[in-house]
Amino acid sequence: MGMRAAVAGASGYAGGEILRLLLGHPGMEIGAVTAGGNAGAPLGPLQPHLPALADRVLRDTTAEALRGHDVVFLALPHGMSAAIAAQLGEDTLVVDCGADHRLADPADWAHYYGGEHAGTWPYGLPELPGGREALRGARKIAVPGCYPTTVLLSLFPVFQAGLAEPDVTVVAASGTSGAGRAAKVNLLGSEVMGSMSAYGAGGVHRHTPEMAQGLSAVAGERVNVSFTPTLAPMSRGILATSVLTPRPGVTAAALREAYTAAYAEEPFVRLLPEGVWPATAMTLGANTAVVQVALDERAGRVVVVAAIDNLTKGTAGGAVQSANLALGLPETLGLPLTGVAP
Amino acid sequence: MGMRAAVAGASGYAGGEILRLLLGHPGMEIGAVTAGGNAGAPLGPLQPHLPALADRVLRDTTAEALRGHDVVFLALPHGMSAAIAAQLGEDTLVVDCGADHRLADPADWAHYYGGEHAGTWPYGLPELPGGREALRGARKIAVPGCYPTTVLLSLFPVFQAGLAEPDVTVVAASGTSGAGRAAKVNLLGSEVMGSMSAYGAGGVHRHTPEMAQGLSAVAGERVNVSFTPTLAPMSRGILATSVLTPRPGVTAAALREAYTAAYAEEPFVRLLPEGVWPATAMTLGANTAVVQVALDERAGRVVVVAAIDNLTKGTAGGAVQSANLALGLPETLGLPLTGVAP
Amino acid sequence: MGMRAAVAGASGYAGGEILRLLLGHPGMEIGAVTAGGNAGAPLGPLQPHLPALADRVLRDTTAEALRGHDVVFLALPHGMSAAIAAQLGEDTLVVDCGADHRLADPADWAHYYGGEHAGTWPYGLPELPGGREALRGARKIAVPGCYPTTVLLSLFPVFQAGLAEPDVTVVAASGTSGAGRAAKVNLLGSEVMGSMSAYGAGGVHRHTPEMAQGLSAVAGERVNVSFTPTLAPMSRGILATSVLTPRPGVTAAALREAYTAAYAEEPFVRLLPEGVWPATAMTLGANTAVVQVALDERAGRVVVVAAIDNLTKGTAGGAVQSANLALGLPETLGLPLTGVAP
Amino acid sequence: MGMRAAVAGASGYAGGEILRLLLGHPGMEIGAVTAGGNAGAPLGPLQPHLPALADRVLRDTTAEALRGHDVVFLALPHGMSAAIAAQLGEDTLVVDCGADHRLADPADWAHYYGGEHAGTWPYGLPELPGGREALRGARKIAVPGCYPTTVLLSLFPVFQAGLAEPDVTVVAASGTSGAGRAAKVNLLGSEVMGSMSAYGAGGVHRHTPEMAQGLSAVAGERVNVSFTPTLAPMSRGILATSVLTPRPGVTAAALREAYTAAYAEEPFVRLLPEGVWPATAMTLGANTAVVQVALDERAGRVVVVAAIDNLTKGTAGGAVQSANLALGLPETLGLPLTGVAP
Repeated sequence: MGMRAAVAGASGYAGGEILRLLLGHPGMEIGAVTAGGNAGAPLGPLQPHLPALADRVLRDTTAEALRGHDVVFLALPHGMSAAIAAQLGEDTLVVDCGADHRLADPADWAHYYGGEHAGTWPYGLPELPGGREALRGARKIAVPGCYPTTVLLSLFPVFQAGLAEPDVTVVAASGTSGAGRAAKVNLLGSEVMGSMSAYGAGGVHRHTPEMAQGLSAVAGERVNVSFTPTLAPMSRGILATSVLTPRPGVTAAALREAYTAAYAEEPFVRLLPEGVWPATAMTLGANTAVVQVALDERAGRVVVVAAIDNLTKGTAGGAVQSANLALGLPETLGLPLTGVAP
Repeated sequence: MGMRAAVAGASGYAGGEILRLLLGHPGMEIGAVTAGGNAGAPLGPLQPHLPALADRVLRDTTAEALRGHDVVFLALPHGMSAAIAAQLGEDTLVVDCGADHRLADPADWAHYYGGEHAGTWPYGLPELPGGREALRGARKIAVPGCYPTTVLLSLFPVFQAGLAEPDVTVVAASGTSGAGRAAKVNLLGSEVMGSMSAYGAGGVHRHTPEMAQGLSAVAGERVNVSFTPTLAPMSRGILATSVLTPRPGVTAAALREAYTAAYAEEPFVRLLPEGVWPATAMTLGANTAVVQVALDERAGRVVVVAAIDNLTKGTAGGAVQSANLALGLPETLGLPLTGVAP
Repeated sequence: MGMRAAVAGASGYAGGEILRLLLGHPGMEIGAVTAGGNAGAPLGPLQPHLPALADRVLRDTTAEALRGHDVVFLALPHGMSAAIAAQLGEDTLVVDCGADHRLADPADWAHYYGGEHAGTWPYGLPELPGGREALRGARKIAVPGCYPTTVLLSLFPVFQAGLAEPDVTVVAASGTSGAGRAAKVNLLGSEVMGSMSAYGAGGVHRHTPEMAQGLSAVAGERVNVSFTPTLAPMSRGILATSVLTPRPGVTAAALREAYTAAYAEEPFVRLLPEGVWPATAMTLGANTAVVQVALDERAGRVVVVAAIDNLTKGTAGGAVQSANLALGLPETLGLPLTGVAP
Repeated sequence: MGMRAAVAGASGYAGGEILRLLLGHPGMEIGAVTAGGNAGAPLGPLQPHLPALADRVLRDTTAEALRGHDVVFLALPHGMSAAIAAQLGEDTLVVDCGADHRLADPADWAHYYGGEHAGTWPYGLPELPGGREALRGARKIAVPGCYPTTVLLSLFPVFQAGLAEPDVTVVAASGTSGAGRAAKVNLLGSEVMGSMSAYGAGGVHRHTPEMAQGLSAVAGERVNVSFTPTLAPMSRGILATSVLTPRPGVTAAALREAYTAAYAEEPFVRLLPEGVWPATAMTLGANTAVVQVALDERAGRVVVVAAIDNLTKGTAGGAVQSANLALGLPETLGLPLTGVAP
């Protein structure tokens, strides 16, 4: 019989996506579903795309409700996971989709989030060098941010192969679901439809140190990251463009080889055929990333573009993938390779 | 009495936008409207948002049809403007929205467009240093590309003030109208809605040398440009993010001062209040650009974001603004400052 | 010199659209701008598409702030206009974009809105039979709802000519701006993009009695209205489909003649050429309505489809048009005939 | 061992959706994939959301390529299926997503499609009374049109229970994928984004007689259908509003009871809780329909709204569901109940 999974924050977008994936997961059954303000309500009207769970009633997000599961997925505001995890005991795998345990450097935490650092958990990106090893048997997992997932998958091959200078400029566009389900004027359909906008530019976005941390670990030296996020008029998807300076003598063939080698055996990352550039529609609803790389010889730059579904590979799918590893299940179990298009 | 204006390519998006602006222009009246495949058809069903012109019949795009106007706006495929202009004589102002006469270097032309270079015309971006002088009394105008308009407005102040190294990484998102009105599968609504995609990445986009040319002229040295365009699920608008390395000692205050100085008197470019980042919705339908600049001290980068409406300031509005200057009319005549939102 | 106009509710969508139109209105200048929760803030960040008003500071919505103008436009929640109007005196034209004074029958008011009826003001739809006469010199105007504007323009010609039975089924799609700018989860971009939904179906939408009232007045008998509104993934626009039963012997030619006659001289309503069906994009940003009618002989039905921009002709443009009439200005002054497309 | 399935028209939207579902179908394996103009090309760049099939090469759509499969899904232009089916022999189940074999009345065919009628095949809507019986063991299936699927699921319960007069007005909105993948100017993203439009209004849409045929069969008398389709700015989804006149004495409770009874055991149709109205987002990517019904006592009307994903339940999912029945597999095998939202 399958593992029993609880989902905290089940009325939000990340929580809903975790439930969507668990419904198709042959090795997990859904236990408690909890929420904050929506506790007491049935899931039906809140997640109407999940009819199999329509009659489930949301419980309050407490350790009591979450106890007794094999795995607990936390899709909560920042700052809540450490306390909950402490009350759940060591038998339960806790998978935190929030930011609390991603950063290793307390100074980074203090600068970008403020307050005291809650400690570092194994990082839920299996594709990174050493990533799987860190997750097998883990009892705590910090799911990466959606932007860092995209950028780390975009760039670790080039740093692993030592083909670029340790400095990267990233500009990424995200669908609005990345901003969550709280009612805010700037996220109203009337505001976002038909409009692209920048936000959190100038180095202040909290995902920046997470990218630098992951890339630096691969490169073996500090990688400088300039990151600009933008908001696109779509619900799902991240498209990230990363631009680097190639090390002297690096060729287009060497770049392609590095990516081919890095992703040949990866089930969820696909290097596109030469000349085909990523579109988020290639990955909608799937736990996949698509990547393309090119050498701009005129400008002396390496250009890497990647696309994911921010809610699937960027959050819930990444969480389930890492949980599979931690629980000793096949890594790909229950995770869609096929997207929904058009 | 007003000037008489002809529009060639009146059934496309750029041509339609020129007509929209001319309908609100107190100094111009609309003469001939011409097209290629749509010649012979009335404008009504082709541009149903322009009811005042519904009964106008499109003529074939020939010098004969375009002769006898004070100004002729060409919104045609590349390669047609030189021949038409040659037949129109020196009394007519020819404003070319195509690429034929933007580049000064025949080698750039050969590399990016192929074939023989048709010569360089005065460049229709009045805001550039010396821009107005080059346009006053001109009889030929090359309207800038929509991306170069955005990027040059984003960056000339920083190079004019000598605040950054001559090297810039640009990632921009455009609405689909920038790709024109020809029926193509990849531009179908089903393909583009809900999806961001990259295209022409890796240094091959034809607007790249145009950006480099304009920025280099301001900087007084060759500026290296890495440019990645992306397609956003919206009809109109360009949002461009440009990232540079500040010269040593450059402060945020110095950057802001450079932009404030550059745009204080500009009617169509607005430096946003600190902390407010551009959205294309701020400019929809208006001949305006909005710009924001920040210094990312951690990464050691200058980040500039700008937004325009690609069809207005990026094409038709820029064309009319430059034509106003060339014809001795007030530069802002007939050009909307107010956008349409939400 | 122009009239002085105040706008109450200037931080919302309707208020913003009134300001947009007033900025292009040669006979009005903008006086006080007021708001509720946003009072004290500058308009710039709230209506960034209106740079000319960026430095205007919102005052609290009080009679004191609104006094002393020739015309006051109220874009407020229901229930506030009567009290404000009472304090402004008879010299000021009060144009209410809310519902308070649209309905003549207190029973309708009680049933659909609840509470006491605040009285009936002249109805701001000049195109209706007798519509202009009721507005000339008026000091109070009730601007119609956006759906009723669309449906009354769709249907009064057929009832005026006595060509249909007094019973109509209407299904209409609206952009999200019709729901206002308050932060609500169901209006988030993530919820509405990529989705059509119904709401307020089954006869409960408050605009239903307003349609019935207007149509009944034209028909000279009670017209039964079934109305179903739907929400479309776009910011602006209403597309309404109305289906009726033709009176015996009615021909397609007779229908077309009725619409041609009704709209031949109307500046803002356009009967489309046969076979061309309305799209909201034909009217975006313009104070226009486009209409088409057909006789479905197989089903024995008259089908009428109309499109408007809900914020322009459906709210702010209709308000200004009626105000022009009341103030003795040319009816079309300052109102755009030209839309923004694509 | 699974059944072997071929897909003809695999480069279009319907064909792509069939492949998406087959990839998740435990009882079918994908054999030949064929196309017209795209024959010879690999599927990868054409259906990039289906990475598992990226290397499959499209064959020409011929009987030879399609022979030897247990089931052949045809997603072809009208008029091609009869000839292909004739060459495939009686061992192969042929499932036609086109219109050729849906209509029983040759006069309807001649009026709406023209030319000679190719004969009637069992109708692929299992939920209809007697629907399953007609499909079990069938060797030919005519998949319903996407609009008729929505409208028949909306209305058969009310006619089965004899609760409404035999006359219905339907207005439906469809996403653009319903119009297929051929490059057409009116389907460009620039044209459809931000716009709702009507088309094929006035009784001329080809799905009208199909609705009338299905409803009349259930009602036991001729049902009159007025149908108006509209195009919505989204890729997927149909939202249909149907309005009828209740028979004398019909109550809201009786209506609800009829729908509850009709759908209590249906795996793919869900009557929503009272007061919750359908949104297409509830069904995106799923083989489900959501339905709501209300009695408008003031207007004396029954209002039914239903939503489906036009490509899933409306085409490919319906095709697979019917094929499951014909092949003796569990009806729900391989068909998603869970949608993708937001």
